[in-house]
Order: sequence, then C-alpha cells, then structure tokens
Amino acid sequence: MVRVGVIGASGYGGLELLRILAQHDEVQVEYVAGNHESQEELSEEYPFLGFYSGLKIQKYDLEACSNACDLVFVALPSGASGVIAADLWRAGKRVIDLSGDLRLPGPMYASWYEKEPVQKEVIDAAVYGLSEWHEQEIAAASLIANPGCFATATLLALLPAVRNGLLRNEETIVVDAKTGVSGAGKAVAPARQLAELADNFYPYRVGRHQHTPEIEQELSPGCASKVLLTTQLLPLVRGIAASCYIPLKDGVSFDDAYSIYCNRYSQTPFVRVLGKGVVPQLKHVRGSNETHISVHVDERTRTLQVFSVLDNLQKGAAGQAVQNLNLMNGWPQTLGLRTPALYP
Amino acid sequence: MVRVGVIGASGYGGLELLRILAQHDEVQVEYVAGNHESQEELSEEYPFLGFYSGLKIQKYDLEACSNACDLVFVALPSGASGVIAADLWRAGKRVIDLSGDLRLPGPMYASWYEKEPVQKEVIDAAVYGLSEWHEQEIAAASLIANPGCFATATLLALLPAVRNGLLRNEETIVVDAKTGVSGAGKAVAPARQLAELADNFYPYRVGRHQHTPEIEQELSPGCASKVLLTTQLLPLVRGIAASCYIPLKDGVSFDDAYSIYCNRYSQTPFVRVLGKGVVPQLKHVRGSNETHISVHVDERTRTLQVFSVLDNLQKGAAGQAVQNLNLMNGWPQTLGLRTPALYP
Amino acid sequence: MVRVGVIGASGYGGLELLRILAQHDEVQVEYVAGNHESQEELSEEYPFLGFYSGLKIQKYDLEACSNACDLVFVALPSGASGVIAADLWRAGKRVIDLSGDLRLPGPMYASWYEKEPVQKEVIDAAVYGLSEWHEQEIAAASLIANPGCFATATLLALLPAVRNGLLRNEETIVVDAKTGVSGAGKAVAPARQLAELADNFYPYRVGRHQHTPEIEQELSPGCASKVLLTTQLLPLVRGIAASCYIPLKDGVSFDDAYSIYCNRYSQTPFVRVLGKGVVPQLKHVRGSNETHISVHVDERTRTLQVFSVLDNLQKGAAGQAVQNLNLMNGWPQTLGLRTPALYP
Amino acid sequence: MVRVGVIGASGYGGLELLRILAQHDEVQVEYVAGNHESQEELSEEYPFLGFYSGLKIQKYDLEACSNACDLVFVALPSGASGVIAADLWRAGKRVIDLSGDLRLPGPMYASWYEKEPVQKEVIDAAVYGLSEWHEQEIAAASLIANPGCFATATLLALLPAVRNGLLRNEETIVVDAKTGVSGAGKAVAPARQLAELADNFYPYRVGRHQHTPEIEQELSPGCASKVLLTTQLLPLVRGIAASCYIPLKDGVSFDDAYSIYCNRYSQTPFVRVLGKGVVPQLKHVRGSNETHISVHVDERTRTLQVFSVLDNLQKGAAGQAVQNLNLMNGWPQTLGLRTPALYP
Repeated sequence: MVRVGVIGASGYGGLELLRILAQHDEVQVEYVAGNHESQEELSEEYPFLGFYSGLKIQKYDLEACSNACDLVFVALPSGASGVIAADLWRAGKRVIDLSGDLRLPGPMYASWYEKEPVQKEVIDAAVYGLSEWHEQEIAAASLIANPGCFATATLLALLPAVRNGLLRNEETIVVDAKTGVSGAGKAVAPARQLAELADNFYPYRVGRHQHTPEIEQELSPGCASKVLLTTQLLPLVRGIAASCYIPLKDGVSFDDAYSIYCNRYSQTPFVRVLGKGVVPQLKHVRGSNETHISVHVDERTRTLQVFSVLDNLQKGAAGQAVQNLNLMNGWPQTLGLRTPALYP
Repeated sequence: MVRVGVIGASGYGGLELLRILAQHDEVQVEYVAGNHESQEELSEEYPFLGFYSGLKIQKYDLEACSNACDLVFVALPSGASGVIAADLWRAGKRVIDLSGDLRLPGPMYASWYEKEPVQKEVIDAAVYGLSEWHEQEIAAASLIANPGCFATATLLALLPAVRNGLLRNEETIVVDAKTGVSGAGKAVAPARQLAELADNFYPYRVGRHQHTPEIEQELSPGCASKVLLTTQLLPLVRGIAASCYIPLKDGVSFDDAYSIYCNRYSQTPFVRVLGKGVVPQLKHVRGSNETHISVHVDERTRTLQVFSVLDNLQKGAAGQAVQNLNLMNGWPQTLGLRTPALYP
Repeated sequence: MVRVGVIGASGYGGLELLRILAQHDEVQVEYVAGNHESQEELSEEYPFLGFYSGLKIQKYDLEACSNACDLVFVALPSGASGVIAADLWRAGKRVIDLSGDLRLPGPMYASWYEKEPVQKEVIDAAVYGLSEWHEQEIAAASLIANPGCFATATLLALLPAVRNGLLRNEETIVVDAKTGVSGAGKAVAPARQLAELADNFYPYRVGRHQHTPEIEQELSPGCASKVLLTTQLLPLVRGIAASCYIPLKDGVSFDDAYSIYCNRYSQTPFVRVLGKGVVPQLKHVRGSNETHISVHVDERTRTLQVFSVLDNLQKGAAGQAVQNLNLMNGWPQTLGLRTPALYP
Repeated sequence: MVRVGVIGASGYGGLELLRILAQHDEVQVEYVAGNHESQEELSEEYPFLGFYSGLKIQKYDLEACSNACDLVFVALPSGASGVIAADLWRAGKRVIDLSGDLRLPGPMYASWYEKEPVQKEVIDAAVYGLSEWHEQEIAAASLIANPGCFATATLLALLPAVRNGLLRNEETIVVDAKTGVSGAGKAVAPARQLAELADNFYPYRVGRHQHTPEIEQELSPGCASKVLLTTQLLPLVRGIAASCYIPLKDGVSFDDAYSIYCNRYSQTPFVRVLGKGVVPQLKHVRGSNETHISVHVDERTRTLQVFSVLDNLQKGAAGQAVQNLNLMNGWPQTLGLRTPALYP
C-alpha cells in the first residue's frame, strides 16, 4: 500500500482524485488538506464520498503531510499549488502537481499566468505528465507537472500529425475547443450560475488562454506552426471537445493520416482512435479516463481535421494524475481507472 | 468466476449491467443478447464499453444462453422479459429479471400492465429483490423479481415508518415522484426528444402508474393506507427523487421517527439516512448504487416527510440486480458497486 | 402614455419587467434604479435589452423617481422592497410591489420572513394582486402586493375547489411544488452554480417556505384545511410546476370538479384549463404570462389532483405585475403580454 | 391586413412563424397546412399557441391556399418545399421559402442535397433573403429563398471582412459552428433523444454540410478563399454560435477591422457589433431576431476572429422570413419582431 495525500481536496480536481482513489486497490488515502479545516468527516461534507470514513479535511501542514504520505497530489489553484508541490518534493516526497505551475519555464509562466514562477530547479526537475507520450520519463520521475485539460485534448490530437510531418509549411493550426464548466473550478462566479449558463454558449479568454504555450512547447521540437487555441464554455459540467484544423501537406491521403493515428494509439489503454467516419461524443468519455479521437480529411481545403474528447476532470486532470501514479509505481495503467463512462 | 449473461443488452438497463459488470471481479460476462444480431463488437457499437473485447450482441437463443451461463440477467421490456426469465429458470439457471413481469400476482399484473402474466408457479417462485428488506430470501433464491425504480425509492422511504407503526389511521400516503428520462427506456418517442423535454417538466400516467400495486403489496402486511403515486418527468437523464407525505400518528416526535430510520439503515452499505435537516440531492447518487434518505416532520400538519433519491439505472435497476447477484453468491454486497456518484 | 419606473432593475424580476415593458404600447419606461449606478447604458450592460436607448441604471432616489414616473414597480428583495414601495405610495405614486413585504399582516410577516414589517396602514392599503381573483379591487387600487410565484401557482389551482366546497373535512392539502432557479434571484450562491445544480434536484426550506401563510390567508375564508407546501429546485431556469393533492369530498365526481374549473376560468385570458387527461407542460408556458391547469380525480384514494404550471418570472412575478398595471389603467389585460411561450 | 399562409405549420420553423405572426399587427394568418389534417384547433394541439382560435392544420391544397392568402411561407423539408413554393409563385402569390431548395443553382443543389432541383427559372427568380445584404432586392421580390441558419450566422460574420478586402491571399477560412438541436427539425431520431444528447457534444456531417456552397456562393464575388464549415451539436434547443477564423491581410489592425464591422452594422436593427472585448452569448439572442457579433484579432497568428450568435429558429429561419416579409411590404423591419431574448 502506498500512502497518499490530496492537497486541495475540496476543489473539483481534489474531489475527483478522491472519487478515483476510493476504487484504487494499491493506495490508501491518509491525508487530505484544503484551505480550511472541516468539522465534519469527508463523507458528511460530501455525501457522494460515502466509502471514506475517519478522514477530515485538515489545514495543510508540511510536516504532518510528509509524515503521513509517500506520495502527494497537489491540486490547488495555479500560484498556490507549485509552491507546496516544491516544498513536498524537496522534503523527499514524490509529488504530482495538477496546476499549471510546473509546466512552463519561469519567464513564459510569468507572462501567461501573470504570477510569480517557482524556482527554476523545481521546474527543471518536473516531468511533463502526458502519459502516452512520456511514459518512461514519468516512470522514473519524482515530480510530475500534470498537463492541462485543453493541452491534453489538443496534444493527443495533434502529436501524431506533428511527429510524422503531416503539416503544411508553417501554417497556423486552429484549435476550437469547448469545455464543461467544472474546468473553471469550484470558485463561485455570477457567470457560472445555472440561470446564466444554462442554454448558453460563449468563448472566453480569447487569444490568451494559458494552455497555448503549454501546447506549443510540447509540439515544438520539429513543429514550426503556431497554435491558435480558442476556448469556449459549454452549458454542461464535464467534458472537453477539441476540433483541430491542421493544414495538410501535399501528397498525404486520408488513409496515410488515419493509419498513423491508429498505429500510434493501438496499445494505449485510454486513447482510442474511432472507426472511419465515426465522430467522438463527449458523453462516451464522461466519467472515464478515456480520450476518443476521430480523424477526417477535407479534400476541398486540404485540411486534416482531428476531433478529440475527454473528461476534463479525468484524463484532463485527476484521471491522468492517477494514470501517472500507476506509471511511477510500475502498476498497470488502468488500476483504479476502469470505470466506464457514465452513459447515458 | 461465475459466468453470466445479459439479455436485453442494448437497452439502458442492459447497458448499465454491462457497465457495472466490467468492474466486477467475480463474474465473467459470457453471453449478451438483444432483439437483433450485431455486426460489430460491443466496444465498437458502444464506445464507452471499451473494456469488453470479443463480445457481440447475439439474437437470443435459450440453448446457447444456457450453455454459456450460470446466471442470467433478463432486462427486456415488460411482457417479453418474464417469458424468457421463466424459460431460463426452468432450464435450471439462476435468473434475475429486471422487468415488472414477476413482481405481481397474475390478475393484478394483468390489470395494471394490460398484458398476459407468466405462469403462477413462476411468479410464486420469484423472490422480490428489495435487497435491504429481503436479504436472506434473496440469498437463498434462484429467481429474483428485481424491483421497479419508483417502487425502490418509495419503499426504502416508507417501510421503516410502516413497519414501526408511525402512520395515522388509514389515511392516504401521497408519493410525489420524479424521474430522469432514462427510466422510460431507449425506445424512441417524440416527447423524449431533447428539443421537447429540455427545460420541461410534467406528470405522466397520472393515477395509473404500474409501480403503485408493487408498492402497496410490499407495504401491505400491517398497512391499511393506500398509496397515491404520481410520477413526473425531469429534464435530466438519471435519477429518481420521491417526496413522501405520511400522515403521522399522534404522539410520535421527529426524534422518534428519525431514530427509527437511522437504526434501520445503520448497517446497509447502500442506504444512508442523512443528518438532521440535510436534504438529499439527486446528483449525490447519480452513477452510484446509493439511496439517500432524509426525514422531516411538519408539525403544522402532523406530516412525516421522507425524501429519497437514487439512480434509476443503478439502485433502481441494474445496480440492485448486481447487489442481489452478490447476495445470491454470498459475496460482499458492494462487489463491483463501489464507484462513487459522478459529482459534480 | 403612462410614465413608469422600475426599482430593482438589475434583478431577474426587474429585468423581466423591462423585457415585457419594451413591448407595451401604452407605457414609457422613464426611470430605472438599482443598488448601484451603472456606467453603461441598459442595452450595453444587458445586450438582450437592445431596444432601450438612453437609459442607465441609477442609484435610487425618491424625488427623482417621483418626478419621472406616474407608476412604479418595486422589485427589490423582501425587506428592502416594501419600505421603498411605501415611500413612493405615500408620495402619491401608484405602486406595484413584487416582494413579499406587503402581502401579510405584520406579525405573520415577522414570523415567516424574520424581518421587520412595514407599517400596518401600508399593508392594509395594499391589494393582493392575484389578477383573476381580485380584478375589481386591483382596478381601483393605488398599491398592489403582487403575489409570490408559488402562491400564484398554488392558489390558481386550489381556489376553484375551495370556493366551491370540494374539500373533504379539514384534511391537509399537500402541495408539492418545483421551481426553476431564477426564482431564487440573481444573488450568487455556490449551490446555484451550474456545476452543482445541473442534473440535480432537491427540496429546500422544508416546512418553512414563506409562501405558505400567503396561500393559507388567501384560501381562508371558508377553508379549514392547512396547506403543506414543499418547494423543490429543478435544474432549469424558468418555471413553476405545482402538484396539488386535495382530499375530495364524498359525492363529488371528476365531471363535477372539471366543470367547476372550466367555468371559473373560461373568460380569463391567461389561465387555461386543459382538456381531460392532458397534462400541463412547463415548457408550454415558459416566457409567457399563461398558467395551464389540469384536473384529475384519483378514485382509489378519493383525491382531487390539480397540476398547474407557470413561468415564475412572468405570471409568477413581472408578467402578473404588468397584468395588474393593465387592470389599474383599464387597458386590456393582455397588453404587452401577448408573446407566446418560447417553444420548443 | 395582408393575408398569409404557413405551409409546414407543424415543424419547428412553421411553429416559430406562427409564434411570431401572433404578435404582428399587419398580417392575419388565414391558412395553415401540413402533411396531415388535424382534428384539433391549433391552440389545442399546441397549447403555447393559445392566442389563435378557429384555425386547424389542413392538408395542403394549392387552390385553397391561393384563395386564402396574399403571401405564403413555405417551411417544409428540403425537397418538398421548393416544389410547393414554385407552384404558389407561379399562381401569382408572393412566396417566402425557408428550405434550401431555392438557394443554389440546380447542379450544385443536386450535388450537395442529393435531390432533384426545381426548375431553373424558379431558382433564377428567387432573391436570396439575407436581409441586411439584399434589402432592396428583397423589397422588390415576389419569391424569396430564405437563408440557412449556419449560412446566416457565417455570412453576417464574414461579409464585412470579405467585401472590404481584409483576407490574406486565398487561405482557407475555418468556420467552427455549433447549433442547438431544434435546427435538425422535429423528425424523431434516436440520437436526438434527451437521454442521448444531454451532457453531450459532437460534430456531424463533417466536410459535407449543405450550407457550405450557400456561404461560398454569397461570398464569391471577390473572394478566392474557400470556407471549411464544421457543424456541431450543442445539448440545448435553440441557438447557433459560429467561430470564424479569417487569415488577416498584412497591415490591417484590430481597429481597422473593428470599425469596418461597426460601420457596416450601425443602422441594422437586428445585427449588433458588441463592444471591444465583449464576447457574444447565445442566451442573449435566444428567442429574438438579433445577431450579435464580436471582433478580435490574434496578433500571434494574424487571424481575424469573428464570433456570431443567433437563434436558429428566428434570425436563422422564421424571424428572418418575417423580416423579409416586412421589407417586401415596406413596413418597419422590426414589426412583430420586437420581443427581447428570453433572458435568463
């Protein structure tokens, strides 16, 4: 049994970690902390967590956390998360950080997040936890920068094309992405009230979403194209759908592209390339750690269209974090993550 | 490993059985059948069932099913389900039937369902599978009549009051119940199109819902009150919420009633009585096998108000069926059923 | 042209008044005020109000309001609304108050609202604005206490039965009511975030909803029954659905009851009794000032079931307020209120 | 009073025409027809149409229709609509056809719709009813090809850029569009059941949506760019949101682009360019005939991003049809169309 802790337990990322870990046979949740001390047990405060007993949310304390845990998930808002992750890692703990704090070089982080970055040595030590593309580095890592939700959906869709040289020149890749509102976290905001958001749809952070540099950085070795990421809010709770428009190099056919995608993901338990002509549905991944990908070629405009869907709290956050936990411990990737999507 | 079959695999009840059984360590799904023969594997036809391989939906055949399975779930529409359940049971299989066909005596069934009942000996042999109230009979049974979704939500809410004599005289118990649309099954209907049902709410089958006699029959030893069950459609997919209005006998206080409920359900893994003043939220049970119950007393009108919520496809159908499977095999009730509700 | 003002213009009730008055041929909105002074014009701050120009939300001022307006709608939260309504009325303005502040005698108000009531003389002067039942008093009134949303849905459903003596003895009338979230107003709350409320359903204020005494007061001449009102939250924006369970006197048939309802509402432009067996759908009244009512008799339990639906911001608030404005001015009731429900 | 008819009255387009025309002071609906003859009055069959009396849906008959009406809206499915529109027009009636049948030259129609086109002379006579761009031709026309919903949202967003030469070279314009499900019409389909579509999102008709040639044709004089239109389904009823990605010519600044859009639409009552940085929300146009447009420039990739939203049944169909009716009769464009969006 690996003893784990969850910092930021009352946020949606933290709660999803607890949902998943409740079903994980090799770990024991020993420590949960947030920004307040709860009077009630977890299972009272969050009735859906009925399988936990004897756990309360504590005010975070480095020493208490270190003593209780072998490995810690930190799922706090960007700005707060990286500092605590760094402390725990320096204290010898293995750490998986779900925030954006460890994903970018300091100056780039400062520019997109408008916050103070953590120390360079910490960022340098962190392995980018895109499970399907850094499996071996993750297995050897003690500090993980868990990817962003939009970044995961986009990168899983773009990387096979980029790595196999399918892009035309240096033309811009358009990524039109949509997310459920749980991606915005649990902080209360007028615009996220049901009365405002139900039956609604609109873009936000146009031209300045902070997952843009994360995506471009990961694509960069060998990709001269820029990515224009546009994020939009769906009137639902969970799910990211990314529509990627990739200018396609001359001479590449649909069959070429399709077999590249199929081959790349033939052995990955959580990433599936759907059959020809089948489109990915958000609902078929909601509540699961899966990503579904669909590949199309528009001959009229010579555009490779790749659609990807995932659950922003699972593969986009807590699910991928547990997948990385499994890789770090040499366990099967699917441990604790076998729940099928909640269909219908 | 117990070898199981699912008949009616392409309906919502059948698919939910497959979702749950994918996570069950002691069973192997060996046979799935429906009203058509599929060309594709389960995991192609239903992308959310990615963990199954090598299974296709077959046209139901008694012999093939009997050979492949030790125990069979039959989840067909009422009228069709009971006949097949009876055949399989006579062929020596253990059977759990999710339809209404085995729950009522023949004449009462004929009157409320307006269909031909199955033979009396089969109905007599079937044990009513309300897990928390028939645990030992279920453990010994070879044929289960799995309860209806409204009946489960209502009975779990009413039985402690009825069995402990809390009812005033023979006054009517009003049960105002609401359900998500998956309870209506997968058959296509104009009124169930999203454009018609979104932002909508309305009652249906007023005064003649077929779960009424099922509820009254189960209450009857010692209950002279009639139940007025009214069912209404919520614009969401999963979940039943029942508001029960029980005329309360003189002299019974809130504390009396509350402790009766707490005691009755203190050892049941899936039925929880919430803290005083806490109301049950549909969302806290969606995707799980739990039932949450809340107890109130309105002194102005001397009414005991009991609210219960469950997921109609889990505790209201497939989840309770698997719970009964566990009881029948002497396994822990929670095997395969530990997934917490999909919150948020 | 009657010059009108709207106080509380940035709340959902106030905005709905502005939506409706934009289409009203006999009034001119001259003054809008809220709890803050806006920098932008109404049509900038609320893009859906594009037909207004030259109006900004002002900080409320009695003198400015009195000078600008002949008649004022006050749609502030209970506690704040009545005070301003009283001031304006004393200043000689005609006033329609949408809050609960003028609906109950002081002591009863203090007990249910836990707030200080306004002066007795003001409350005594206010006419209860249930349009279909106080048409002549409203026409003669200078101060209107506009009814609550649950009260309107319930009273329109109960009054024909009560006034015609259909109730059995003094038995309790159960009213199981459901509302969209806009009824809770625009104040931000964690529980009303879409991530929390979508796919959810639950009761609130069990046993102590403040519309209870408003209903009982209006029924009281000649009704000895108590009303048990239970309010529940639907995961949608607009609409109230009330299921009323009325113990039915011996000897009263369905046809008796049905013709009483049909006769009572045969001439009311906004209240419709649906055909036999037709159930009222929330969606068929959303965005309109209509109330649809459906009458059933359950012979097994001798219960008269009356279902009513309305839009809580229209007939439940701003729509009925404009209907009362029309009555007060001797205009057709439907002026400005002819928009059919937004179907689908 | 102009006497009008609605053919296809039981579809969502036809019903929306009836919703709007109920509030139009200069027309009288004299004839409604569909593919069946109704036994009930309109107001019984569709309770939200309570203001109509004495009208029943009739089986369509050319002579009866011609005798009853001066002007006819035809809102049947593509394939059926154009034939009837042509007949009525040849019989001397003014006709507004809401289908795709009269929008494209025959061969192009045949290729994208895979149906038989109507006669060339009819198509040649039809004026494309994009109100803001063909105002004078519409005013003079007797036959209108009312635009498609995606085409309207896209063209209103693209035309100012195209007509003013803002496009870079001949690069592809990506249009990532989303629609509510009412756009698919009222025909029943498994995928449009609420249980399937709620909490879901996915693309459809990838690479072959029939509004693509309609858009390119309207852009074509002076536009060498192709349009890649991708359509996706939102889990809501009404609304189209189009995200347009336009490669921007060197030297054009945001201010240049923004003022072009503001100027173009400064006098149009239904198309509004929002303030700098303000994003358009679907909900702010739902139920109204408005289109909201927002203009952004992404300097990193030199892309002009234009977002537009409209209600697919209003400006995307019936609303624009009534706007064209107004233009054809020399009435103010806003007649019958002043209802603000249903917010919240």
